Amino acid sequence: MFDSLWYGGDYNPEQWTPDVWDEDVRLMQRAGVTVATVAVFSWARLEPADGEFDFAWLDDVLDRLHAGGIGVDLATATAAPPPWLVREHPDVLPVMADGTVLGVGSRQHYSPSSATYRTYAARLATRIVDRYADHPAVIAWHVNNEYGCHVPRCWSDESAGAFRVWLAERYGDIETLNDAWGTAFWSQHYASFDEVMPPRAAPASINPTEQLDFDRFSSDALLALHRMECDIIRARSDKPITTNFMGFFKPVDYWRWAQHVDFVTDDAYPDPADPRAIPFAAAVRDLMRSLAGDKPWLLMEQATSAVNWRPRNAPKPAGMFRRLSLQSIARGADGIMQFQWRQSVRGSEKFHSAMVPHAGEDTRIYREVCALGEELAGLTSVIGSRVPASTAILFDWDSWWAVEQTDTPARVSYLQSVLAWHGALYRAGVTVDFASKDSSLDGYDLVIVPTMQVVTPEVQQRVAAARERGATVLVTYQSAILDEGLGVLPGGYLGSWQELLGVRVEEFAPYAQPDQFFDAPAGAPSSTLAGELAGEIEGWSEVVHADAAEVLATFTEGLAADGPAITRRAGSEGAGAAWYVATQPSEALADAVVARLLADSGVAPVARSASADVETVRRGDRLFLINHGATAAEVEWDGGSATVEAGDVTII
Amino acid sequence: MFDSLWYGGDYNPEQWTPDVWDEDVRLMQRAGVTVATVAVFSWARLEPADGEFDFAWLDDVLDRLHAGGIGVDLATATAAPPPWLVREHPDVLPVMADGTVLGVGSRQHYSPSSATYRTYAARLATRIVDRYADHPAVIAWHVNNEYGCHVPRCWSDESAGAFRVWLAERYGDIETLNDAWGTAFWSQHYASFDEVMPPRAAPASINPTEQLDFDRFSSDALLALHRMECDIIRARSDKPITTNFMGFFKPVDYWRWAQHVDFVTDDAYPDPADPRAIPFAAAVRDLMRSLAGDKPWLLMEQATSAVNWRPRNAPKPAGMFRRLSLQSIARGADGIMQFQWRQSVRGSEKFHSAMVPHAGEDTRIYREVCALGEELAGLTSVIGSRVPASTAILFDWDSWWAVEQTDTPARVSYLQSVLAWHGALYRAGVTVDFASKDSSLDGYDLVIVPTMQVVTPEVQQRVAAARERGATVLVTYQSAILDEGLGVLPGGYLGSWQELLGVRVEEFAPYAQPDQFFDAPAGAPSSTLAGELAGEIEGWSEVVHADAAEVLATFTEGLAADGPAITRRAGSEGAGAAWYVATQPSEALADAVVARLLADSGVAPVARSASADVETVRRGDRLFLINHGATAAEVEWDGGSATVEAGDVTII
Amino acid sequence: MFDSLWYGGDYNPEQWTPDVWDEDVRLMQRAGVTVATVAVFSWARLEPADGEFDFAWLDDVLDRLHAGGIGVDLATATAAPPPWLVREHPDVLPVMADGTVLGVGSRQHYSPSSATYRTYAARLATRIVDRYADHPAVIAWHVNNEYGCHVPRCWSDESAGAFRVWLAERYGDIETLNDAWGTAFWSQHYASFDEVMPPRAAPASINPTEQLDFDRFSSDALLALHRMECDIIRARSDKPITTNFMGFFKPVDYWRWAQHVDFVTDDAYPDPADPRAIPFAAAVRDLMRSLAGDKPWLLMEQATSAVNWRPRNAPKPAGMFRRLSLQSIARGADGIMQFQWRQSVRGSEKFHSAMVPHAGEDTRIYREVCALGEELAGLTSVIGSRVPASTAILFDWDSWWAVEQTDTPARVSYLQSVLAWHGALYRAGVTVDFASKDSSLDGYDLVIVPTMQVVTPEVQQRVAAARERGATVLVTYQSAILDEGLGVLPGGYLGSWQELLGVRVEEFAPYAQPDQFFDAPAGAPSSTLAGELAGEIEGWSEVVHADAAEVLATFTEGLAADGPAITRRAGSEGAGAAWYVATQPSEALADAVVARLLADSGVAPVARSASADVETVRRGDRLFLINHGATAAEVEWDGGSATVEAGDVTII
Repeated sequence: MFDSLWYGGDYNPEQWTPDVWDEDVRLMQRAGVTVATVAVFSWARLEPADGEFDFAWLDDVLDRLHAGGIGVDLATATAAPPPWLVREHPDVLPVMADGTVLGVGSRQHYSPSSATYRTYAARLATRIVDRYADHPAVIAWHVNNEYGCHVPRCWSDESAGAFRVWLAERYGDIETLNDAWGTAFWSQHYASFDEVMPPRAAPASINPTEQLDFDRFSSDALLALHRMECDIIRARSDKPITTNFMGFFKPVDYWRWAQHVDFVTDDAYPDPADPRAIPFAAAVRDLMRSLAGDKPWLLMEQATSAVNWRPRNAPKPAGMFRRLSLQSIARGADGIMQFQWRQSVRGSEKFHSAMVPHAGEDTRIYREVCALGEELAGLTSVIGSRVPASTAILFDWDSWWAVEQTDTPARVSYLQSVLAWHGALYRAGVTVDFASKDSSLDGYDLVIVPTMQVVTPEVQQRVAAARERGATVLVTYQSAILDEGLGVLPGGYLGSWQELLGVRVEEFAPYAQPDQFFDAPAGAPSSTLAGELAGEIEGWSEVVHADAAEVLATFTEGLAADGPAITRRAGSEGAGAAWYVATQPSEALADAVVARLLADSGVAPVARSASADVETVRRGDRLFLINHGATAAEVEWDGGSATVEAGDVTII
Repeated sequence: MFDSLWYGGDYNPEQWTPDVWDEDVRLMQRAGVTVATVAVFSWARLEPADGEFDFAWLDDVLDRLHAGGIGVDLATATAAPPPWLVREHPDVLPVMADGTVLGVGSRQHYSPSSATYRTYAARLATRIVDRYADHPAVIAWHVNNEYGCHVPRCWSDESAGAFRVWLAERYGDIETLNDAWGTAFWSQHYASFDEVMPPRAAPASINPTEQLDFDRFSSDALLALHRMECDIIRARSDKPITTNFMGFFKPVDYWRWAQHVDFVTDDAYPDPADPRAIPFAAAVRDLMRSLAGDKPWLLMEQATSAVNWRPRNAPKPAGMFRRLSLQSIARGADGIMQFQWRQSVRGSEKFHSAMVPHAGEDTRIYREVCALGEELAGLTSVIGSRVPASTAILFDWDSWWAVEQTDTPARVSYLQSVLAWHGALYRAGVTVDFASKDSSLDGYDLVIVPTMQVVTPEVQQRVAAARERGATVLVTYQSAILDEGLGVLPGGYLGSWQELLGVRVEEFAPYAQPDQFFDAPAGAPSSTLAGELAGEIEGWSEVVHADAAEVLATFTEGLAADGPAITRRAGSEGAGAAWYVATQPSEALADAVVARLLADSGVAPVARSASADVETVRRGDRLFLINHGATAAEVEWDGGSATVEAGDVTII
Repeated sequence: MFDSLWYGGDYNPEQWTPDVWDEDVRLMQRAGVTVATVAVFSWARLEPADGEFDFAWLDDVLDRLHAGGIGVDLATATAAPPPWLVREHPDVLPVMADGTVLGVGSRQHYSPSSATYRTYAARLATRIVDRYADHPAVIAWHVNNEYGCHVPRCWSDESAGAFRVWLAERYGDIETLNDAWGTAFWSQHYASFDEVMPPRAAPASINPTEQLDFDRFSSDALLALHRMECDIIRARSDKPITTNFMGFFKPVDYWRWAQHVDFVTDDAYPDPADPRAIPFAAAVRDLMRSLAGDKPWLLMEQATSAVNWRPRNAPKPAGMFRRLSLQSIARGADGIMQFQWRQSVRGSEKFHSAMVPHAGEDTRIYREVCALGEELAGLTSVIGSRVPASTAILFDWDSWWAVEQTDTPARVSYLQSVLAWHGALYRAGVTVDFASKDSSLDGYDLVIVPTMQVVTPEVQQRVAAARERGATVLVTYQSAILDEGLGVLPGGYLGSWQELLGVRVEEFAPYAQPDQFFDAPAGAPSSTLAGELAGEIEGWSEVVHADAAEVLATFTEGLAADGPAITRRAGSEGAGAAWYVATQPSEALADAVVARLLADSGVAPVARSASADVETVRRGDRLFLINHGATAAEVEWDGGSATVEAGDVTII
């Protein structure tokens, strides 16, 4: 789809005078910029009053960019309604669960289910696409912006109505809903869909299935907006479409979205001061590549240095901007875009770093920007090359939503559970794909199923089949507890995976926070396992019966003491091993388990280094060696070795 | 009132199909179940549409239970209004102090002052009692459920009107209210009751007496609902009535409620992971016995293992279910009921343990349930026997509400103050009754008055009279500071107890939290006392003048340093000693004071053990020895001794 | 203006019966009271129904006070609207950003922009002034009370309208507002003032200039109320007017208010348990003296001992009441008033200490009150004498509001930055004036500019001019970053101060909180500086280019490591040195820098002591030596020395 790697950023010319526009093109050329994303927040400028459009300035900008050789990723400009729309139609505003209305003054002040918003957004998008479909600068369409980042859910009366329509489509009749939600509990039986409300403020815990369905509906309501704009564009243009995702963003199920874009893009803002940010960022890149499947993906937004929205905003130290950019390329990205091109001098994000900072050209930041531009120009041939992975981690928004509800055995962090395994594989030099509940698992030699609380018979069967054909499978605690209506799988949980794993679970026994009775800071309590895979764990134990599996570690405390904590059912006749891990492991324990999994499955690392700071990824015929640490490190791989200097990236 | 101890639980057959009902009866019989509580949350099932009733399924359930020999505690089913009622009559919904309306989706979504709710609840209760008054399975009536547990207060316009009616009844005319509330302060004078509002969101601290009266009104508004249903039942049935209390539940003054039930019942969910939960549970049982007076009491709800509503829900380790059950029996309970019989597979409480867990019959939990059923069957003869106590602790909701308001000398925990003394007596093996402000103190040799901030002349006189006739009396800090209108007792506080105790208080001097200026975690600061009763204290000191009392300990820090902290005025001519403790003692200090109090009063422990884990209580002619610890312990009493194994209960 | 020092307190006779009034006059006389503030919260008593006034009781009180020789500071009584006004006109109530309405029950329940409130307040004030303008007891007018202490801002529709009027006056036309606010960002362009809303609840960060303008508007809206009452009074009386300020009170820009009162008064409640409270109180006195300029100032409210509104309210230990009172006198106060005369027995503040406590006359507190009255009577001659200061610290509400917004490089505490320098000068025995952005800097030898984020060209020029004429100047981090519309000063920040200081700033690099990723308690991280002025710092670093300044300390960590942290540009030809401090210093480091500044500027301490607990101030021909510590201390000054006993005050 692309001739060169995208390099550039959000460009907001409406904040500047035309003389600056010329300067911008000059500085873009000097920095090696290939693409600018334009008009993301231009609605008020493009349509200054209801039905009055002003495109002249945008014509001018696009012409100048095109003349300068810069391609344009043109936004539909629907992300922030102008004040006049709110004044004329206050029904566009979102309403919170307690009835608070969110108004103008910031951005994204629209209800995803507002018919008025939909009408006005459609008209604007239509006008923009009609006008620029054939403009030579335009190389792609950028729909809206970061759907749901501030307003993922709305509880207005109009949203309530849309929720009811969605429920009627899902369940067909009200008794099917009553059964799925279990409304016999607490006298919640509905006589008709008209009685159902979104989960607004209530005296006590709201029906869990109602909550989950509202999560699903809210994700779909945003997706419906996206699809409306896609339909408008596709009827008028064959240029590719994207909308910018936000990594592991809980409110939106990106598996359902990815099929509706032509290429996946991601906005990623790892905290430079957080030591866990780098492996986390690697997981995000792997998710984006997995969402994209056969389509391209690229980084749509990152900061060159500090952001502005944390309580304390650390700058990126020298070299980190490059390393995180090349991490993305290594993990499949076909472009590196930034928010934003020129640092604003007014507005909420004026302290957010940019490619051209407040202090101008003669700065560390702009120099790093130019250097990266040059380096990316030399990497054009990576476009279209694949990142091989023979390990898959199942990732499921339903389970994320469900396991983090209240009224569970214990508050579990879904991401913590997932990332413990991604992190151990990252440290082992193993590249990982993510897979959805509906993904094929063909071709994977190792399949990890962390805390997949909500399952379908199909995914249970697909995992079992993978093991039958020889893959090693690992399932962790709080998996296969509930069906899609959040009904319990009775008789020891785990459903058909009882057979797969050779275990069943009698009781949950989360460890108590020792000081929780004294209002101590939160945080999971810790304990240990004993046995062959002894080690430290966090927070969770359960009473497991391992009737048909080998016990590799046992709990040492509490109700489950001396009972199985890690089990392995060996495969027979070509089938792989099936593991169950009944707890949240420490890093060291996860590393030990992963070492055994690699032995079981035959999955091999990309490369090996004694330094935990070295990240290794293969893309196409290139091997990327990224040293995030402060000292030089040796790396070995099949057929070679190299020294990577501190903070450096070596591409073999 | 009862032929056998109640044993069983909440039974919600509407969540299951009839074939499960038969299985339930079989498993109940096997477990020794005698009683099931039915229809607590059945409104939507019993009245699926306005005025349309469906009792056939409940007829069937009651018949099956009766055929199986299981008695029924039948609920009036008014605890959770069905969705249709809210849709037709949104005025039933409660409104919070900031105007937020609480809607459907959970339970208890009604305003205690809603006339509409009252009308519909009355109709439903009437229909149920009319139909089942003579059903042979029904042995008692269960009114509503856990009144006020989620919505103890409502600030709606309708509640405001009801508050005004309540105030007019209390004060007669508006000037009496103005005097009591002190509305001369901050220009709050009311010209008529119509101007008075409930304590909704306001710029600053709301009038303290208004707050207290709203607490009183809110408790009474719920009580009025309860009494309405009692009247309906009593006009139609002579079977006994209860409603389930919730231990030390701050929003509801159970002293005012207890007179309106035929037997007291309690819902108790001590946290298995909290080491303080066991003595706290003992205090709860003592409160229930004291509330009941001459009537029976029993445990209406407890968990067999974990609950679902804490952030982390620890299971009960083996044996704890039995120990806490027998603790209740020892302290006077005539039954042990659970929430719930069969664990739900859907809804908010599906992860709450039950008598029959998700994993079925072949489980630790069901085995413990059967064992307890068998043990209780052997204890039938305890029914009606009394738990002797010669020590009373005064417990007063007015003081609880008042002392925990804002704008006091320091935030004091009323329960911490009360339980310090109950705990020390528990550790000493002394059984305690609670007494209200209006209770007779006849027959008590030791009377403890912890932090009774709000007093009447009558209770002051009654305590003084107890001491005159020979009882030992102990009063602690922040007692007798205010009258019932929260007006200060001037001239050294304590009112007529200055004479009783021989002390007066010039100033309060709570210790400051050392790090409160740096946003450190909360928690009371600590200091020490010097003298004969030296020891550690928490948070509180005051300037005491002990003109007519012996000083047994002095403060060591702050404004009150070297001044009296613990005083004792010896009795003369048959009168007992009168103690004043001007601070919050540590456990060890409270133990030391209690040892002196027992010597003064002649109160003797039930039994003695070197182990702090052994709980000893006498009921009727039985002596209960409960070893909550992990090692065997020796126990001695007048006339005998025994070894109690770790975790075991010995009944002599 | 005054013949004797004011001494007395808020007097609320409406809370008491007339026999107590006579007792009050007797006790006031005994205590040396000269002035009572009357009628602050008397609206409901003076106007018990709409338009019905009752002044008889107030006539009586004023006559009795006058007969007793007590002057009266008479309030306009508008601080707390009576309930009838709210019932008749609920539009007076304030509305919060989320729509919550604040109602009756406490005080200050009016929207600053309510036309109805304004009408009724004006009528009341007119009636009071008309009646008492010539009463011989009245010596001053007290307008309202603590404007904005609970309701500094209102977001009602009426306030929205007033905000628009204010904006139209400030900007003239909407495009000027659009430019200033930078509404090109995030599609916020307004077509007319009618579209602008106050910063109500919104999805994301609200436009920063909108927020700042709402802060300015809200301060001005309260000021407009104050000025309305002043106009009423001045048309009827020539007695002096005040309203009580509240120290460093963020919501109200007192520089704009001070010009509208005839004398400045302050309410000060330092926490007796906070060791930082004493130097902080000194800074507050300096602020009040600086606000007053050539007018008098006095302490209008303080507590004799504990307050009631903190979570834990420590009493003032013996002597502290005297020391803090004399601290005020030393720093220019012409009076010491208390809240309140007689401790209330009902209402929200009944646990707030007073001059006559609950325990009566025979108390520590009343004895200290009498002793101070006698001491103040001996200090009459200080009236009108000046407190000399040759050091000024710039203090600016715009910068306070701006630097503590969200979406900045890091959350910076403006007061922490300012007080670090005031504290170091306090410890050095140097008296400090505060100066506004518009103040003349003539006569100051040392000018400190801490974190003045928002600057005008005029203040930049004025500071530069001070240095030109020989003053030493010190500017600290986050100064001169933004113009008055919060637009960035580009090209290295600092505007024209780049030339003054010889530095420019390329990037900000706030240090990260090490544990911020684990929900650890907040608090700034710390680091160190190296070099001639090595030491500890908190939280902040930045990349500084010191092209024309000497580097006296460098950062040791992070992006700015080895770069300039403290710089000094030497003056030439009569100009002073110009310092830049690019971080928040520890106490010790600030002390070291201040020692160098004193050497540079020739500013001399008032006196010197080895004890950090001794406060030294010169007023007129008196030298005040205040020993806040627990041991005696030696003090030396030019021409003398003395020993000050522990906790004592020596006046030379």
